[in-house]
Amino acid sequence: MRYSQLFGKTSKSAPADAESVNAKYLTQGGFINKQMAGIYNYLPLGLRVLTKIQNIIREELHKVGAQEILMPALTQEESYTTTGRDDMDILFHTEIAGGAKAVLNPTHEEIVTPLVKTYTFSYRDLPVAVYQIQNKFRNEARAKSGLLRGREFNMKDLYSFHTSEEDLKDYYEKIKEVYFAIYRRLGLGDLTVLTYASGGAFCKYSHEFQALSEMGEDTVFLCEKCRIAVNKEIIDEQNSCPSCLNVDLVEKKAIEVGNIFKLMTRFSDAFGFTFANEQGKKIPVMMGCYGLGPSRVMGTIVEIFNDEKGIIWPEAVAPYKVHVVVLGAESEVMNEAEKLLKSLEEKHIEVLFDDRAKATTGEKLGDADLIGIPYRVVVSKKTLAQNGVELKLRNESDAQIISQEELLRKL
Amino acid sequence: MRYSQLFGKTSKSAPADAESVNAKYLTQGGFINKQMAGIYNYLPLGLRVLTKIQNIIREELHKVGAQEILMPALTQEESYTTTGRDDMDILFHTEIAGGAKAVLNPTHEEIVTPLVKTYTFSYRDLPVAVYQIQNKFRNEARAKSGLLRGREFNMKDLYSFHTSEEDLKDYYEKIKEVYFAIYRRLGLGDLTVLTYASGGAFCKYSHEFQALSEMGEDTVFLCEKCRIAVNKEIIDEQNSCPSCLNVDLVEKKAIEVGNIFKLMTRFSDAFGFTFANEQGKKIPVMMGCYGLGPSRVMGTIVEIFNDEKGIIWPEAVAPYKVHVVVLGAESEVMNEAEKLLKSLEEKHIEVLFDDRAKATTGEKLGDADLIGIPYRVVVSKKTLAQNGVELKLRNESDAQIISQEELLRKL
Repeated sequence: MRYSQLFGKTSKSAPADAESVNAKYLTQGGFINKQMAGIYNYLPLGLRVLTKIQNIIREELHKVGAQEILMPALTQEESYTTTGRDDMDILFHTEIAGGAKAVLNPTHEEIVTPLVKTYTFSYRDLPVAVYQIQNKFRNEARAKSGLLRGREFNMKDLYSFHTSEEDLKDYYEKIKEVYFAIYRRLGLGDLTVLTYASGGAFCKYSHEFQALSEMGEDTVFLCEKCRIAVNKEIIDEQNSCPSCLNVDLVEKKAIEVGNIFKLMTRFSDAFGFTFANEQGKKIPVMMGCYGLGPSRVMGTIVEIFNDEKGIIWPEAVAPYKVHVVVLGAESEVMNEAEKLLKSLEEKHIEVLFDDRAKATTGEKLGDADLIGIPYRVVVSKKTLAQNGVELKLRNESDAQIISQEELLRKL
Repeated sequence: MRYSQLFGKTSKSAPADAESVNAKYLTQGGFINKQMAGIYNYLPLGLRVLTKIQNIIREELHKVGAQEILMPALTQEESYTTTGRDDMDILFHTEIAGGAKAVLNPTHEEIVTPLVKTYTFSYRDLPVAVYQIQNKFRNEARAKSGLLRGREFNMKDLYSFHTSEEDLKDYYEKIKEVYFAIYRRLGLGDLTVLTYASGGAFCKYSHEFQALSEMGEDTVFLCEKCRIAVNKEIIDEQNSCPSCLNVDLVEKKAIEVGNIFKLMTRFSDAFGFTFANEQGKKIPVMMGCYGLGPSRVMGTIVEIFNDEKGIIWPEAVAPYKVHVVVLGAESEVMNEAEKLLKSLEEKHIEVLFDDRAKATTGEKLGDADLIGIPYRVVVSKKTLAQNGVELKLRNESDAQIISQEELLRKL
């Protein structure tokens, strides 16, 4: 992609109301643009990052047989009356022509439970696990922190359905592993810890995945040996490591990047969702739900991986792998840079190509730091004189001159 | 994908309220499931089709430099006050915590115009074309016809921004070609005709893309020589072919599968979106908009390509390329079928594998016809005895026995 043609450029000044690092850098870098509090437009750079996060999640979920579906945003309010959740204060309400009341779904238990019920007749149809990736809506009193707390936000939610609590438990444990595989690929693996949190009315605990960060709004108590934490909300009832019983827990700030719940029969009871077991007896279906928000993860990555100059994307989610910066408008420089671009594209390497004629060296290098692509390659008269290009990694301070051939090998 | 594990099975009975062929077959085939009038869930089979349609659109749009972005569903009502469109009766209204009024976007002129304005400073930043694929909302008094007229539906909308009417016109003509390239890939090429329609207040004509079908709700008058049509709504003012002036037009039924408008300065005026030309003079930006609905196209394809047994998917949008049907539970049959599945998957051919032990031959073959995958391959004791498999194309009536090697070559 030629930067001169890219829609959504960098901006020098931070938005006045950007109260968080992710909102500031993502806006200044030309990734997102605020529509209103908690609601953002994704520009081409931002949508590339979001899509990469979504696809990593998809790939890992498919490994454990989860099947992708797509449920709507709008649903009749009646479904929430059935579960007694029509009084949730985060619901957006609207009215369908003709007078029926509807809401925008903040989560999809009320839709997925009757949906899966439709296709489940006996124990032979279970277990089944379905997920979707779409926008959810929460009418937050105060939306803030950029992509961390939105009114309209992108969510992956997975629901699983089982014939027994044991089978639910097995799948739940499998999903814990899947989540860690996802965080590792997203670059958050080392920082993310399994955290025990309140399970609500039906289960002792739920589990959160908390990415440790001083920027976090959550407080967790970490067992540094087991890398397992306890959310502050339940520290009074659980003041030791749930794994090794160590009571020497360390208070940390963290950002929640996922949560999983055993819903048990909470929603299958409400919708009368039973299955016939081998003896033909009707038994309520056991359910689990597993959330992981791609847009929230995107914000979290920026909160954690940045410096005073801008974002430092982990390679797997960077909008492009290589940022080629052309310094100088001399035809020999431009020709060499175009040649390099062609070689990279032939190898299917994703390149952002800064071909701007009017931008200064300072602007171009500053923008490269702000945008935060992992590999920066400078082509200039100086590098040409040394028969090479200058390679600098975004997360390292030293640059080196190497030949184009060596660069292609490295990438 | 093993059919025994696929979420969303076929059903023998048509939904009572399925008033159209697409709603009937897509529901019975396990592609979609109605949530409420005009609002559907996409099951795994249906989402695969929808995604393929979306990706074909993406690929063709990228060829003409359109860049993908993502705008929100929720927007402050104020934006519609600015353009005077806050009284549209198809708007869904809601309220943000704190009292601000918001709507669900039925289209995105009110969002994209100020967004592109933010990043446009002079003529150097133009032209630019951005598109998105997401769900739109229309509070239809009566939603019907399955995926053809939804209250929540999937839409691709492209917007282009230009320094002059000439430049807009050039791009507009280019998009006509792009749209036909898309319809050709979708299997609708031969049936889809450019249709002149009302241009509203700012332009003499807009253009629709109408897929000729007796099931269509629209009426067009076709010049059979030019394959250009005139929508009934303007036949009084335009009663000849706009291209060859032939007055011998043929009345046809059709389904609208796309429409494009020259918006001129309708929205740039409302939002004060001007650019500085080479002389530094401020001039309003010229806009075009181009719609094409993936979910509506999916419904249209089913309306057009079907027979009394079910859907006949064009290969490019079929949920899978090959439907392997295993008849008989003998281990030699199952082993041979598994071997075939492995060979196909190694060649990255998408396979739906009907491995159900309890289904009868009639059920399996009936389901294959209903689901409508292009290549049906039967493995049975009979085919084994002939050292081959039975290949039948969904759109042909004859089957043939061929060897596995020959099958792999054919696919």
